[in-house]
Amino acid sequence: MAPRVALDAMGGDSGPSPLVEGAVLAIRDIPGLRVSLVGVEEALAREMSRLGVEGERRLSIVPAAEVVGMDESPMDALRRKRDSSVLVAFKEHKAGRVDGVVSAGNSGATMAAAVRCLGRLPGVVRPGIAGPFPTLKGPVLMMDVGANVDCRPKHLFQFGVMAAVYHEICFGTASPRVGLLSIGEERGKGNSLVKRTHELLQTSSLNYVGNIEGGDIFGGDVDVVVCDGFVGNVCLKVSEGMAEALGTMLRDELSRDLSSRLGYLMSRHGFGRFKKRVDYAEYGGAPLLGLKGCGIVCHGKSNGRAIKNAIRVASEMAAKDIVGRISTILDKVGFDVPDDEG
Amino acid sequence: MAPRVALDAMGGDSGPSPLVEGAVLAIRDIPGLRVSLVGVEEALAREMSRLGVEGERRLSIVPAAEVVGMDESPMDALRRKRDSSVLVAFKEHKAGRVDGVVSAGNSGATMAAAVRCLGRLPGVVRPGIAGPFPTLKGPVLMMDVGANVDCRPKHLFQFGVMAAVYHEICFGTASPRVGLLSIGEERGKGNSLVKRTHELLQTSSLNYVGNIEGGDIFGGDVDVVVCDGFVGNVCLKVSEGMAEALGTMLRDELSRDLSSRLGYLMSRHGFGRFKKRVDYAEYGGAPLLGLKGCGIVCHGKSNGRAIKNAIRVASEMAAKDIVGRISTILDKVGFDVPDDEG
Repeated sequence: MAPRVALDAMGGDSGPSPLVEGAVLAIRDIPGLRVSLVGVEEALAREMSRLGVEGERRLSIVPAAEVVGMDESPMDALRRKRDSSVLVAFKEHKAGRVDGVVSAGNSGATMAAAVRCLGRLPGVVRPGIAGPFPTLKGPVLMMDVGANVDCRPKHLFQFGVMAAVYHEICFGTASPRVGLLSIGEERGKGNSLVKRTHELLQTSSLNYVGNIEGGDIFGGDVDVVVCDGFVGNVCLKVSEGMAEALGTMLRDELSRDLSSRLGYLMSRHGFGRFKKRVDYAEYGGAPLLGLKGCGIVCHGKSNGRAIKNAIRVASEMAAKDIVGRISTILDKVGFDVPDDEG
Repeated sequence: MAPRVALDAMGGDSGPSPLVEGAVLAIRDIPGLRVSLVGVEEALAREMSRLGVEGERRLSIVPAAEVVGMDESPMDALRRKRDSSVLVAFKEHKAGRVDGVVSAGNSGATMAAAVRCLGRLPGVVRPGIAGPFPTLKGPVLMMDVGANVDCRPKHLFQFGVMAAVYHEICFGTASPRVGLLSIGEERGKGNSLVKRTHELLQTSSLNYVGNIEGGDIFGGDVDVVVCDGFVGNVCLKVSEGMAEALGTMLRDELSRDLSSRLGYLMSRHGFGRFKKRVDYAEYGGAPLLGLKGCGIVCHGKSNGRAIKNAIRVASEMAAKDIVGRISTILDKVGFDVPDDEG
């Protein structure tokens, strides 16, 4: 069956341009794909015309008059803006007219709209966002990277299970290695949340490798990193900010003498390959896991290529029935551990 | 008065070699400095002989038969190993025979030994570690980076005050800008600890700029980043791990074609300047703040240059009476905010 994806075509830092561009790249790349562009009709029609795809039958516009701002409180915004693009996109999914939703808008609002329209999978206490990190070996999924800032051990445990199942199905990883983010590899280390989560993970059927430290994320020796959404979001932003700052400093130092400047020019193919390897745009957004449906959140700064890749991930999730398979597996691995209110 | 520093000459990942090397570099660099090398006598004498400084009167050995391992539980280790190098080093400080202590060993044990021997400054609930980060503009201090994994708002508030005072005295920063690490710049964002800390910081006399995100650390738009020791330690390790992984990937890609390889050689001065700029060894360790005395913790992987810089920082802290001045200022800025057990 040809995949159908709804794109919140208004969310993000730069308005509809890179989003519609991403949809156009996606239909050129993915056979049979249809994309519903959700948002303000005139704005989207203008973008389609700018890109010369007015008559393209695989792109359609689904009107939504409002947009949730990047800095709005998710709950307030969804209550007030019932015709917002992100909410209308998930309603399309709920109604069965698309198989997944992609949004580069306010990620809190995206998660809230997804939970409201699709609901949680049975047994899931808190859905979360699984963020991909570039590493030396392959993609690492960190969960949660921002949806849940105050967590209990059971939440973290379920993040580990869901991200492991997703890694297995999506990347074909047999028995993904799950690490718990802490501040030392010994089991006694960490804050109280981590120590109690360790007990739960240890008795699970997951391939749990124990505590890992922040520096171990990039070595590629684990496939899944479990943490609460506050720590995960900070890690994500620190690594982005660090990469950007290092890039600036390196360019700066390489432009200070003639030999370095020439050397940089000669090395440009190498720098190009490097850039591609660490570019977040290659990773195609972060899946929302734990829902009865498929949602992908993208960076607010996403360019067309990042959006295209996110649409690709959404259509693969649908094609492989990842949500259905996660639901089946969750039951088997003993998902329903005791909760701990502390 | 000539500065005197005790070096825990056994702690760290590589044994005494880089430590004694650092002490030798330090006495060559800092006029009048004396360093007490604390540790196993024969091992240290052998290192001194290897470096050709047997007769150097500005280096002395203070015997300590035991070493706290990097992975040992700090409390257990200090209880069992009463003659450990880190404890003996702080006893030297307590006895007034040195003005500060430098250790690259188990940082939890270093903090515990410091608290036990020196005690806390009046009003300080939790001493912490202020970790320096390289940024585009100048050094940013993040506090806490690992001493306190479960914190209350008052602890974070005090971290902000102590790090700001240290930044002002050490780097000459008038009215340092203090940011609270969170996952969004709006005041409503963050976990419950951050939201409650925000209220305390907002009513303080600090130059508080509000919430900052992980990516803002490296821009140099704040001088002090406030967070709990779990989050701070994860950030520190993530940024180290990320820098290392990026370096590996870049070297890898630059060696794949001849032009890039030649370009890299031509750019080596630029790369050298870049490396120096981001090298943690340049920053000279992280001060323990909130104690009646001076302690500096270094990375376990510290080389001689990093140790030399840490000894320099310790001797400056002593020369500028930073501890005394922190104590005086703490009183003035209204350090004793209400505590909140939640």
